[in-house]
Amino acid sequence: MPHQLYIASGACSLGAHVVVRELGLPVQIVKVKTRVPESPIHAVNPLGRVPALRLDDGTVITENSAILPFLADLAPGTPLFAPAGSVERGLIQSWIGYFSAEVHAGGFRAVNRPERYSRDEAAFDGIRSQSRATLKQTVAHIDRHLAGQDWLVGGRFTIADAYLGVFVRWIARFGDAFSDLEALNGFRERYLARESVQAALAFEAQE
Amino acid sequence: MPHQLYIASGACSLGAHVVVRELGLPVQIVKVKTRVPESPIHAVNPLGRVPALRLDDGTVITENSAILPFLADLAPGTPLFAPAGSVERGLIQSWIGYFSAEVHAGGFRAVNRPERYSRDEAAFDGIRSQSRATLKQTVAHIDRHLAGQDWLVGGRFTIADAYLGVFVRWIARFGDAFSDLEALNGFRERYLARESVQAALAFEAQE
Repeated sequence: MPHQLYIASGACSLGAHVVVRELGLPVQIVKVKTRVPESPIHAVNPLGRVPALRLDDGTVITENSAILPFLADLAPGTPLFAPAGSVERGLIQSWIGYFSAEVHAGGFRAVNRPERYSRDEAAFDGIRSQSRATLKQTVAHIDRHLAGQDWLVGGRFTIADAYLGVFVRWIARFGDAFSDLEALNGFRERYLARESVQAALAFEAQE
Repeated sequence: MPHQLYIASGACSLGAHVVVRELGLPVQIVKVKTRVPESPIHAVNPLGRVPALRLDDGTVITENSAILPFLADLAPGTPLFAPAGSVERGLIQSWIGYFSAEVHAGGFRAVNRPERYSRDEAAFDGIRSQSRATLKQTVAHIDRHLAGQDWLVGGRFTIADAYLGVFVRWIARFGDAFSDLEALNGFRERYLARESVQAALAFEAQE
């Protein structure tokens, strides 16, 4: 069996999916549903989450901050990443860590799932609105960094950009509240123009 | 100027601090206060957070999921990490990502700082208690993995263990509520017995 990347439509697995297509890796893309008990994801990742990468030897790697570099290291020397020990690799991994921890788990999580943060339904609206305000500060930091440049690190598209695309698509759902983040708007256009992204989104949209 | 690692006493920077001491790296440890406007951290990391690693060329790397591997890659071949492209490296990076995103940002953050999740002070106690329940599920996943083994990956102490030590110390503050996590209790004892950890904690405790 080849390596298999488990993804779900609209999920944060899009970044890893895009990397597989950018690099033409021999990795099978397996689309699953999440948050339903009968999903095959539970046999792969006991946490029930995507992305999950099942290697040909059965080992399962989870977390975007591990899967993205692992995929890129399947194509040594790729411009999507940088060699171990290089400063560029440190910077790329730093942005990936920021997106995973601060933007996703520390940001979107409470906006989308306030029940993880309180049992009191009366508190949910307040949690959503304050969490969205916190999230805006978190993504504004990325917007400032991107001002005047196309991609996050080294003037080229890397695995950090592949992952950032997840969140620039998600914030677009907020409409006007986040539309003043102009560098991120420009990034979104460049991201969506890539062949790999269009192919990934088309695959994810299929029934 | 040598590389400088900015840390704060009691913070999540302990993991990186321990790695510097484990490997005897030529990295200067700079202890700062955080969350005070006059802290020198603001000139290094605009987010005001530790750990931050300032390289000898002035580049600043943030996020544990980037700093820990970068430090280990300063000692190629170290048993604390594994080569680029290896499955072990993927697994080590996976645990680090889980701790950073799920345990810290998605877990402890709301327990410690409910004001990031609501403006309504009346909601804070409910946020703290539900977030602590969510956090317990998150760390129970680690406890199950550790059952019957000393360290997370490959039967040896790695940078993932150096980082996990941060959180096993933090959950000890919860007292009995988390004391049934026996594998994590055993881990804490092994962690605190290490010379590097004792030296790091002694340094952090100094005035």
